[in-house]
This record gives sequence, C-alpha cells and structure tokens, in this order.
Amino acid sequence: MPAGPRATAESLPITDVELDDEFWSPRVETNRDVTVAHQYDQLETNGCLENFRRVADGETGGFEGPMFIDSDAYKWLEAASYVLANHDDADLRERVDEVIELVADAQQADGYLDTYFQLVEPDQKWTNLSVMHELYCAGHLVEAAVAHYRATGEESLLDVATAFADRIDQQFGPDGQTGVPGHEEIELALVKLYRVTDEERYLDLARYFVDARGQRPSPLADELANIDDIAGANFVHHGHTAAEGARNHFLRDGEYDGSYAQDHQPIRDQETVEGHAVRAMYCYTGVTSLLQEIEDDELWAAMRRLWTNMTTKRMYVTGGIGSEHEHEGFTEDYDLPNDTAYAETCAAIGSIFWNQRLFELTAETAYADLIERTLYNGFLAGVSAGGDRFFYVNPLETDGDHHRKEWFYVACCPPNAARLLASLERYVYGRGTDGDALYVTQFVGSSVETELGDETVSFTQSTEYPWDGETTIEFTHDEPVDFDLRIRVPDWASDVALSVNGASVSASTADGYVSVEQAWNPGDEVTLSFSLPVDALTADPRTRADAGRVALRRGPLVYCIEDADQSVPVESLTVSDGADSFEPDHDPDLLGGVTTLRGSGTAIDLDGWEESLYRPAESVDREDVDVVAVPYYAWDNREDGSMTTWLPKS
Amino acid sequence: MPAGPRATAESLPITDVELDDEFWSPRVETNRDVTVAHQYDQLETNGCLENFRRVADGETGGFEGPMFIDSDAYKWLEAASYVLANHDDADLRERVDEVIELVADAQQADGYLDTYFQLVEPDQKWTNLSVMHELYCAGHLVEAAVAHYRATGEESLLDVATAFADRIDQQFGPDGQTGVPGHEEIELALVKLYRVTDEERYLDLARYFVDARGQRPSPLADELANIDDIAGANFVHHGHTAAEGARNHFLRDGEYDGSYAQDHQPIRDQETVEGHAVRAMYCYTGVTSLLQEIEDDELWAAMRRLWTNMTTKRMYVTGGIGSEHEHEGFTEDYDLPNDTAYAETCAAIGSIFWNQRLFELTAETAYADLIERTLYNGFLAGVSAGGDRFFYVNPLETDGDHHRKEWFYVACCPPNAARLLASLERYVYGRGTDGDALYVTQFVGSSVETELGDETVSFTQSTEYPWDGETTIEFTHDEPVDFDLRIRVPDWASDVALSVNGASVSASTADGYVSVEQAWNPGDEVTLSFSLPVDALTADPRTRADAGRVALRRGPLVYCIEDADQSVPVESLTVSDGADSFEPDHDPDLLGGVTTLRGSGTAIDLDGWEESLYRPAESVDREDVDVVAVPYYAWDNREDGSMTTWLPKS
Repeated sequence: MPAGPRATAESLPITDVELDDEFWSPRVETNRDVTVAHQYDQLETNGCLENFRRVADGETGGFEGPMFIDSDAYKWLEAASYVLANHDDADLRERVDEVIELVADAQQADGYLDTYFQLVEPDQKWTNLSVMHELYCAGHLVEAAVAHYRATGEESLLDVATAFADRIDQQFGPDGQTGVPGHEEIELALVKLYRVTDEERYLDLARYFVDARGQRPSPLADELANIDDIAGANFVHHGHTAAEGARNHFLRDGEYDGSYAQDHQPIRDQETVEGHAVRAMYCYTGVTSLLQEIEDDELWAAMRRLWTNMTTKRMYVTGGIGSEHEHEGFTEDYDLPNDTAYAETCAAIGSIFWNQRLFELTAETAYADLIERTLYNGFLAGVSAGGDRFFYVNPLETDGDHHRKEWFYVACCPPNAARLLASLERYVYGRGTDGDALYVTQFVGSSVETELGDETVSFTQSTEYPWDGETTIEFTHDEPVDFDLRIRVPDWASDVALSVNGASVSASTADGYVSVEQAWNPGDEVTLSFSLPVDALTADPRTRADAGRVALRRGPLVYCIEDADQSVPVESLTVSDGADSFEPDHDPDLLGGVTTLRGSGTAIDLDGWEESLYRPAESVDREDVDVVAVPYYAWDNREDGSMTTWLPKS
Repeated sequence: MPAGPRATAESLPITDVELDDEFWSPRVETNRDVTVAHQYDQLETNGCLENFRRVADGETGGFEGPMFIDSDAYKWLEAASYVLANHDDADLRERVDEVIELVADAQQADGYLDTYFQLVEPDQKWTNLSVMHELYCAGHLVEAAVAHYRATGEESLLDVATAFADRIDQQFGPDGQTGVPGHEEIELALVKLYRVTDEERYLDLARYFVDARGQRPSPLADELANIDDIAGANFVHHGHTAAEGARNHFLRDGEYDGSYAQDHQPIRDQETVEGHAVRAMYCYTGVTSLLQEIEDDELWAAMRRLWTNMTTKRMYVTGGIGSEHEHEGFTEDYDLPNDTAYAETCAAIGSIFWNQRLFELTAETAYADLIERTLYNGFLAGVSAGGDRFFYVNPLETDGDHHRKEWFYVACCPPNAARLLASLERYVYGRGTDGDALYVTQFVGSSVETELGDETVSFTQSTEYPWDGETTIEFTHDEPVDFDLRIRVPDWASDVALSVNGASVSASTADGYVSVEQAWNPGDEVTLSFSLPVDALTADPRTRADAGRVALRRGPLVYCIEDADQSVPVESLTVSDGADSFEPDHDPDLLGGVTTLRGSGTAIDLDGWEESLYRPAESVDREDVDVVAVPYYAWDNREDGSMTTWLPKS
C-alpha cells in the first residue's frame, strides 16, 4: 500500500509478496476458498445484490437488510480484489465483474449511490448522517474500487467510486452542507482515492471531514434534534427505529453527547479514546493517512496522545479494544471487564489498520509490536480454526455459552476478517520511502520481489513463528543491492542473536530493530533468533478486573485455559504469581498444531458451597493439579466449556 | 407484626419494644428527627401533595412527578405512623392527619384513588398494569393505613384503604379483569389488610394476584402488544415514554419476556430468582405472608428453592441483591460484578421483609442470620453516618465517584430506609405462636413488655453488638413465667458460652439457637457470649468477579478498605489468602466509633506502567504495607477515594 510523502516506510504492495507460511497460509487459503465464496453467497441471500438490481430496474421500495447493507457488496469486492491480486481465478474475476456491473447500473446519473435512499427515501438523502451510514457505504465503495484497480488495473469500479466521490465533494465542504459522518470510513477512503487519482480535492475533502468532527454546533446534534423528521425515522434496525437508536447512542442524560462518534470535541483536542471503538479506529486511521500527506503537528500530537491512552489504559492484553456492549466501545481508563468484554473483532482489525498507518508514518516498532499482538490474539480469536465461523464479541472469560457464528445480520466482522486475511501480505514488510531500508516487521514465511529505490530486491523469509523464534532471510536477487535491513525485535524477546551467512554478528537492538546495512548479495542469509519467554503478566493494578490474577504469555501469544484440557473445571483453578511452573510443549495434533503451556496450579473444591456462596478461606479444600494453557486465539474450537485468560492467584 | 396462623413465631408489635442501643438508637433517632421530617418536606416540594389537592379540587391535568408519586405520601404516612407508635408527637400527628385528609378528599366516591389517572387519563384506568403502578400505589396506601391503625387505633386512613381495596376487589379476580400487577406490593399489603379487618376477600384477592402471575397468555404481554394505545403511552419517565420503558424492560429479542416482573412462569414453578430485585422481594414477601395463612406445599417449595438460589448463587457477601443496572435486577448464577453492582438499597430492604416472613413461618435461624447480614451491610451502607444521605446503588468497589445523595426523583430508597429504621423493633424478637417460646433474633439493646400466651413478660437486652459478642437479657416482670428462651447464635459465631444468673450452663446450640426452658423469675439474668472471629472469606470460585480475592468479615460485619485509611492507594493493595494478619482495633473516634481491622499486605508500585498496561509479574515492584479495613456500611463518609471489598491476593 503506498504511503504518503511524509511517511518513513510504506507497506509493500501485496502483489510483491507471496505468503508461504505454516501458520498463516492455511488460514489465508481457507479465507480465499471458503470465506470469500461464502461472503458472496450472502450477498444474494441477504438481499444486498437484489437491492442494487431493484434500483437499476427503476423500482422503489422493497429494500432489504440493515441500512448499510450496500457495504456488504463493497467489502466483498475489496476482499475478492485482494485475492485476485495474487491468485487469478477466472470464476472469481467474472463474479467480481458482475457485481461491479450491478453496482454501476444502480448509480444515479449525478453519481449518487445508496440503495436504501434510492429505494426508500429518495428525498431524504444526506439528512441523517448520524445513523444512516451513507458516507460509510461510500467509503467502502472507494476502498473496494482502489483495491480492484490496484489488483487488476481496471477502472470499472474506480469510475463508479470517483463519480460518487465527486458527488459527495459537491455536496459537502466549506461551500456546501456541513457534514460529520456518523460512522467514519470516508476519510481514510478518500486518502486512498487521492493516491490512485492524484486529485487533490479528495485529499481536501478528507481533511474537511476530519476537521469538521467535534465542532460546535455539531450538525449531528442538529440531526438528533429533528430525528423524527429526517431519514430513517421509521426504519427499524435491531428492534429499534433509527430514531430510537440515535437517541440511545448519542444522548446522555437527554443532552447530545457526540463521543459515540468521536464528535465530542475536535479530534486535535481529544485526550482519550472514546465511543464506538470501530468508529474511533477508522477515524484515527483516516487521520493518520492524512498525516502521511500533510503537516499538522496538533493532529499528530493528538494521535500520539490517543494511542498512549488506548494502549496504556483502555486495551485488553489481547490487543482487543472497546469494553462495553451498549456503545460497542470505550468506557473509562482501566475499565476492562473480562467476561462482559466487547472487544469486537472489527475493532481489533481497525486497530491494525491504524497501527499500520502509524508504522508507515514513523517506522517505529511499537506500532508493529501492537499489530503483532492484535493479529495473533484479539483479531485471530475472531476466526475459527476452520476459518468459517466468526466472533463478533471476544470475551476473555466465559462460562461456555459464547460461540462463533457463521454470519451475522450486521455482517461487519466476517467480511472485515476476510479483507484483512486476504491482504495479510501488507503487514509483513515495509520499505523506506527514501529507498534505502527494508523493514521486516512480522515473522511470516514468504517470498518477495519488490523495488527498493531503483533496484529490485528479492528474498525469502523462513520461520516457524509463532512457535519458534528463529527466522531466516535469504536474498535471491541477481545483483548486490546496498540497503539497511531492519528486522523488528519484539518488545518481549530475550536472548537475541543475529548471524549473517552463518557468522554471528553483534546484534545490538536499537529502537526495536536489529539493523545491518551493507550490500546484500544473492544467496546472503541473515538469521535472527530470540527465545520466546513464558511470562506471567500482571495488569496495572488500577485494572480491577485483573486484580489478583495473572495472564500467561509466550512470545506473541496470550494464553488461556479451557475446560477441555483440564482435569478440574476452569473456574476452580488458581495459579502462583509467577510463570516458573509453566513450560512450553508443542502438540502437533492439538488445534491444528499449537504449543501448549504446561504447569501446575491449585484447584478449589467446587463441592461444599451448597449452603453459602462465601466461606472462610481456611475451610475451603484445595488440591494441587496440572494446568494446561492453549493460545487464546484457539479457544472455542472444541466442546463447550469454560475459558479464562486471567488466572486467579492461589 | 402479627403473623398468620401457620406461622411458628410472630414479630413483637413495635409498641412492645423500646430500643436503647448504642449502635442503632442514634440511627433510629436521626431517622425520626431528620429523615421523616425531610421526607415530609419532599412531599410538598415534589408536587405529591399538590396532586392530591388538585384532584380534591376537581381539577384536571397538572400532574407532577413520576407516575407512582402517590406512594411517596403513603410511604411517609407509614414511616410517620411507626414513629407515632412509640413516640407521640403532636406536630407529627397533626401533619399525619392533614395528609390523611388530603388523601381521603382525593378519593373517588367509588373508592378509586390514583392522582395520575384522576388528573391525566381518567378513562384509561387499569389498562396498563405493567408500567403505571396503580396497584403498587394502592399497596403502599394499604401498608400505611395498617401501620396508622396499629399505631393510633384510628380508622381514618384505614377507611380510605379498605374502600380502595374493595374497588380493586370489584375490578379484578375470577369474575372480573385478569390482573397481574407490574410491580408487586398489593399482594403483601392485602394480607396485612386481611389481618386487621378479618375480611377474607382481601386474602382471596392476594391469593388471586399471586396465582395470576406467570400464567399464559399473560395480561402484561397483551398490554405490551398495545402499549402505544393504553395509559401512559405519552408519559415521559426517566427520559423515556412509558411505552419505550415497557419495551425496554419486558421485551427480549422483540418477544415478551415477563421475568422483569416475575411473570415468566407461575411463581410455584419458578426455580431461580429473576428480574427486578425489589419486585421479586415484594412478590415473595407477599407469597410468604400468604403461606402464613394458607397451606400450599407447592408455593412453599418454590419459596425454599428461590431462597436457596438467591443466597447460594445470586447474592453479594453484603446481602445485597440484583447485580445489573439495566433491569435493576438479577442476572445469572454467580454473576456478581463488584464495581458495577446494582445492589439497590430497596432490594436489601425487600430481602429483609421476605426473610422476616420466612422467619415467622419457620422460626429457622437461617432467615434471621440473613436479616442480620443484610441489615448491617447491604442495607446500612445505603444510609450515611449522618442519616441524611442515601445510596440507591451499592457497589462493592469503586474508584471514588459514587456518593450518597440527599434524595432521588424516584424516591424509593430513602423512604424505604425510613420505614425500616422506624420499625426496627419488629426484627429483634419473636414470640412463639403457641405462646411458649420467646425468640431473641437480633442483638439490639432494648426493653420489652409483651404478652406470651396469657402472661406478661418484661425484660431488657443489653449488648455492645456488633463490636462485642456478649449480650445479657434481664427479666423485669413481676411473676415467674415458664417458657423457652431461644437466642439465635449467628452462623459464624465461635466460643459460644451461656450463663444463667452468673452460672455457666451447657449451651448446646441446636438449630442455630441456644435454648433454656424454665420458669423465668423477676431479676433472672441470661448472658450469651461468643467471639467475633475475623475471617477472610473466599467466594464460590464460580463467582468470577471474586476469583483471586478475599473479603474480610468480623462477626456480622463485612469490611472494606478505603483510601482514607491507607498509606498507599487502595488499588495497589493485595493481601494474603488468610485473615491471620488482621486484628480488631476499636476506634471510638472514627466514623462514629467502629472496630477497624488492622493487618499487613503488599502494595504493587503504581509507577512504571506508563508504557504498558501489562508487565511480567517479576518486573513489578512490591512493598510490605499496613492495611486498615473499616466496616462496609461506613464507607463513603469521608473524603472521596477508592474503596474495595474483595481484596486481591498477593
């Protein structure tokens, strides 16, 4: 993905990277073969494509699905385009073209395109940005169009997207309607569109939307004041009218409170991450994309502040974010309940999007570290081992009644997971925008051929990550190329060692990297190794949900315990403060092959509680037991049972 | 309070008991002098009395307050009547008579009385029992009338109540409208009314309402189906129309779910305590009152089941109940979050009401034990040290932003606390309905003159409870009386010793009592003593919120730690598994005189968390510190700060 001129590093185009990884490739292939195909079937069965057909046929009414159902088609087009980028597939290409044609046929002559409004309320366009998701759908259209154009070079969908973007640009801005998108997405999409079209007005419009948010009077507040008379007033979604939904989300004690959509104050003034977590992540992804293009020290300082607030006070150990169901979002510092965690899969994905923009801008490893943590834990738990079932909500503790589903009425998580997995190549490497550095940010087996400055660099990465900490890069290009090879050393790594062509070299880690700058010759081999320590993590004690508990981590993976592996119920288990008793043990037959952590703990007898919930500690029977922990991402892939991530101390 | 014929023991009339207790008397006096007076002032300022005046004057419209505001007057009349029972006060008596006159003047000729309906929707009476609280208000009128009649012997308010009860009896029942009160209260009130009037039809009507609940089709479900066309559809309460409120409370996934008002299945079939906790407690109080009058083994088995479910799976260690804000009620077994606990003060009071009926029915000490636990913890925390500020919600952990308030728009907790404190005499003793036993169920200094069978018994109780476990009963009647003196031994007590006239006697505890049956002579003295052990309680490990934590208890009191007493922030404190390190230390100058628990713990350094919420346990600095715990009831009476009840283990 090209970054802006102010970026330090840009992701490699996904066409430059071919994955060949024992851990990720099966997941990426299942995503390609099962999920993306299933996602297409859903477009027919849930009425999404039919909506486009009805509009194209000039019909009215008969709209099906939630108001933002158009985005289902766009998300599929985006994921399918990523698939096509590296895996040409005539059938898929044909289906993509058919859907693009449907979408194009539904577009109005003036560029407008939103099947809800075209079928149901053609006179109420742009009246309800707080709830009705017009600009959100437009943003997903743009993302799909950019992905399709980059994958195929074809402009069929890009033409639709630019026409709609032009219509939006005509509608909104200093000389038009004041617009604050209720669900951010258009901002990040417009920056992408600018990069493929070089049309400055898209960048200006992105900047306009970013700056409009949080101003007073807020146009969203005005909408709320007239919510019964504008678009969607009678549209029922999730058992509420859109008007009721708007009131529930945007009012607090009867007053407008914009934090749900990050409209509580200008973004540049914001101190804490607030509101709906996916919206917040898309918002900050858009802002950070913009910061790769323009200089704005205030906005950049805000991004730093918000990132620090999120990562040090409002984030689960899995990288999951958004602890509250009601607003699907952030609450207060240190409020991170485990059993009622929301931690939406899409919010984890959004965090990866944001952190990738932050990494590109700065080349700082902290962002890549967080991508790793989120990718292997908070995100990956959202996808079943078979790749065909998904979590919307990711608790860190459950008594066994939370399971992945095939699909959802609000189908955001599965398609979002699909587009992330279909573009995983993007997150593994970066190249310095000066053309003099190659960044290896994630340990994923792959072969690469890419441009670095004016030169072509080719290499393979071999690794058994996340089970083992040894990774080898072997260069395969024809001529020596001089550049700085910078390999991220995870923040938890120990015993770091580096060798070049079998000879140990001093591997001083600076700024989170080991770096070797030299002319890299064909056949040169670099091996980075580090150990994956088992840690018992303590949470900041202000995080009350984790008080008196520890979480096990080995390398990038957070672990949990499930009933399936224990001799006693999970609820009865307690452990010592440290991780001393836990040793890794790789089991190739378990859960597709995982390294378990085996140790010892103490079990509280579950008998004897018939008369009281509460008993003097010394009257409670306990026994020593073995404890087996599995990676958090792998939970809920076997029989029903309890699971916990934060283990109570004995 | 007289119990029914099937009861084993009945509470003594409050006129037979005069409190003289170092712990309780100041609280009861503040309640009498401050709260009941303030409660009266509220009736004027919140529009309650004005509503009655407007009705009496034949006006329409202009209704003020929530739809159940009439009950504010009735609750005040009830509390004021309890005060008058033992403390004649000409001013108070005059104000009571004035309010009774206002209420009587507002009553319709046919007996109907509800100012909301009379002023706002006279044609929509009895159409919306689910939300509009008509029968709830009627129940409180009846309770007030019975209290007033018992305290004064006057029938002024009783006449109003019987006329309204007759109107209700005419409206509902096998030959009338099928009625399920949305908020239980009328059932327990009708049993009380039956006992003062001997009119069987009130008992029959109570039984009718009990049996109507949970049947299908449910009349409440029918109301919900027509909620926009019945009473209250446009009445706004708590920022929602009554219709919205009804949908929020009674619908689950769009379907009627009666559990909010215990209407999910017939009471006799219920297995678990569900829904709004105050409603549930009033419901079961009514049912248990009925069971003192009639034989119904199924209903009784249901009460036993529900009590066991509540006490062993759905109750805080404080006796608080109802863990969820949204429905102010019960959720699932073992779901007892500490920081977001609802644990409404009124629900604790309702639990005391229910347990008192259960105690009367069975004379089993388990119910008196729970009254004690709830009275000294879950209830008493609801009232400030000054007696003039109240909690509605009682969390067991907070970061310092939860404080008592003077009053509430929905003024249920302060008046409920007022009527409980004004009738505390009721909970201290029982007398066997056979006339051959005297029960001492709570340790509260007092002097008593009462009838036991045909004889008069007088005595004093002297105690320094809850700080000390020695209690003396000295008989003061003129002639010897032969009966079984049964003194409850708390379930946590140890080192129990009994002496009669200074001579130690064998004090074998049977069924939770020490019992001495003999002729009791004037001047006879009985002293029961036991030690108040300090226990570190462990919760059933299925209670995940308490996993890895312990709660300190000494005797009847649950303890908490507050910032005000510690050298380090509460959040940083951890303790060992046992209570060995904690010793009681009475401090007469602290919080009105409390016994603190002083011990040692470990503090986690709050510095060092700037970069990550989660750190390897061994990298976290800790130090040994002193820990001071205070009774939970006394929290939030000093400067703002954090508080926790369940202390994390080191």
